[in-house]
Amino acid sequence: MKRTEKEQQALINNIKRIEGQVRGIQRMVDEDRYCIDILIQVQAARAALTQVGLSILEAHAKGCVVNAIEQGDLAIVDELMDTVKKFVK
Amino acid sequence: MKRTEKEQQALINNIKRIEGQVRGIQRMVDEDRYCIDILIQVQAARAALTQVGLSILEAHAKGCVVNAIEQGDLAIVDELMDTVKKFVK
Amino acid sequence: MKRTEKEQQALINNIKRIEGQVRGIQRMVDEDRYCIDILIQVQAARAALTQVGLSILEAHAKGCVVNAIEQGDLAIVDELMDTVKKFVK
Amino acid sequence: MKRTEKEQQALINNIKRIEGQVRGIQRMVDEDRYCIDILIQVQAARAALTQVGLSILEAHAKGCVVNAIEQGDLAIVDELMDTVKKFVK
Repeated sequence: MKRTEKEQQALINNIKRIEGQVRGIQRMVDEDRYCIDILIQVQAARAALTQVGLSILEAHAKGCVVNAIEQGDLAIVDELMDTVKKFVK
Repeated sequence: MKRTEKEQQALINNIKRIEGQVRGIQRMVDEDRYCIDILIQVQAARAALTQVGLSILEAHAKGCVVNAIEQGDLAIVDELMDTVKKFVK
Repeated sequence: MKRTEKEQQALINNIKRIEGQVRGIQRMVDEDRYCIDILIQVQAARAALTQVGLSILEAHAKGCVVNAIEQGDLAIVDELMDTVKKFVK
Repeated sequence: MKRTEKEQQALINNIKRIEGQVRGIQRMVDEDRYCIDILIQVQAARAALTQVGLSILEAHAKGCVVNAIEQGDLAIVDELMDTVKKFVK
């Protein structure tokens, strides 16, 4: 992995924010808030989670994948593609 | 809305489970776990959030949307479609 | 359905454009063009197809779905949601 | 690229099939067929296009990307990730 201390902290903060969003969604359901308002929050949390996933994927590609290929381990490309497929579907 | 007490509780439980998944992702990042293992959890949380969104959307369509149309309020269909578009993109 | 003559023609034109995009992709593969350039065209065709789908879905929701609900046929809402789920996944 | 003659032909055939699907969608719109039936075909064409994209992406990752990294060109990883992001959004 190639994350610096600062990138690691930014990533953790983004995940904490998503945890807060999910807790907010739970509260909205509890309070019987208007469905469309809840759905806007669900979609926002989902988009934020996608961003977190892409950011981890990018760090992995630039770090582990490059290192492994340089050392002749090409199986890591299959693993990368399997993960990309799960996100694209 | 047309959720029964039991459906409401199931929905809350699903959202709580997602909150736990997100906390688990945070811990994995903190512990510098292997990116691909983290990404599998991110994708699982994202899929669970999509299911929660679709379940709220379905309750909304069967409840509020049907009621509003029966009372001649067709603007609710525009609102529904705007939300569907956000999820599909 | 509530499509005017003009909307119908616009929809047909959009689908024809997608057909052209797909033929273009075929040619690029045939000519062994650079993968990333092909992928940009694939993604463009896919986004255009999504727009066509959403536009048909919207016409359906505003036309058939509203009419059916006004006549007391609520099964159409299940059918609508099944289709939305296929697009969101 | 690492596609064999046979893989190249299979890819071309898949793209031709999608072209046929798109032409079928056009015909269905022309004949004013039921929206939900059209949408099922739109979704099928979209899923097929996604598969074609993933298959090209995989060939690119295993071919060009590995070769470039082995020759010290790491910029190809940024290009790959930009393309992945377009597909995931």
